[in-house]
Amino acid sequence: MKKLFGGPGTAGGLVLRIGQCLFASASIGAMVSALGFSGYTAFCYLIASMGLQVLWSFGLACLDVYALRIKRDLQNPVLVSLFVVGDWYLIQFGCSVDIKMQVTATLSLAAASSSAGVMILYAKDLEFCRIQSQIPCSRFQISIALAFITWSLIAMSSLVMLWLLGSI
Amino acid sequence: MKKLFGGPGTAGGLVLRIGQCLFASASIGAMVSALGFSGYTAFCYLIASMGLQVLWSFGLACLDVYALRIKRDLQNPVLVSLFVVGDWYLIQFGCSVDIKMQVTATLSLAAASSSAGVMILYAKDLEFCRIQSQIPCSRFQISIALAFITWSLIAMSSLVMLWLLGSI
Repeated sequence: MKKLFGGPGTAGGLVLRIGQCLFASASIGAMVSALGFSGYTAFCYLIASMGLQVLWSFGLACLDVYALRIKRDLQNPVLVSLFVVGDWYLIQFGCSVDIKMQVTATLSLAAASSSAGVMILYAKDLEFCRIQSQIPCSRFQISIALAFITWSLIAMSSLVMLWLLGSI
Repeated sequence: MKKLFGGPGTAGGLVLRIGQCLFASASIGAMVSALGFSGYTAFCYLIASMGLQVLWSFGLACLDVYALRIKRDLQNPVLVSLFVVGDWYLIQFGCSVDIKMQVTATLSLAAASSSAGVMILYAKDLEFCRIQSQIPCSRFQISIALAFITWSLIAMSSLVMLWLLGSI
């Protein structure tokens, strides 16, 4: 398995995964702190999708930390066999991980887009944000922007994963 | 290049492309026939995205017809060289075609999701569809459903393309 920035078991991959976790959590935080978000199906779906993403990215980040630690201790001969097992494990699971990653990337994009559709309707088409000042539009917008950043990070690691699987 | 159902230059690929064209056109038709769609940014974006998809899928369908015709005439020795050129062309352009396909798949999903977000807000959260009967909700819903079908067909051919590129 070639090593590529953002691939599984690399420092770049770990950074991507932690970034996904952080931005998804921030998106949930911004949305939950906005009053009345629960009245909008799209915003509830955004929270559900980002929550799933936090769990999933956290799991992958743990796997990356495990892989990085094993590689750092490679001078230890006892751990060499573990490393081989770890890499084989990563290749074997690469395919299923990638399918799940494509699924979560699709879910995140759908959630962010549907929320953005609602927000554009409110801010631009109906001008509710200007007329009805009790709607916390700015918090909704921050949350949606963070969700789009999360999606771009997921898309990045999903493409890297696909590339690696193609080159095995 | 392996032959896979839905790959470029196969009958399955042609069917997928024609399906994309038809469903995207039907989605545009349903949306345009609904009164007042132009007041919604999300619906205008849906039309733009589906329009781009119609052009793009039509272009690929022409390429597929060309490839299929060359292969049927393979007993003609003059055309064998053309066939080789055609296949080489397909492999060379596979990568750029696939990137564009991923981009159009992403755009279609974003357009369909943002329109669906607006529709769910109107039909479920605000109950505008029930209260304000002058909004052509059913036409909007049909158009969005057709856009999702188009997206699933694009996603299918995009995955097949990625698989083929990975196996070259």
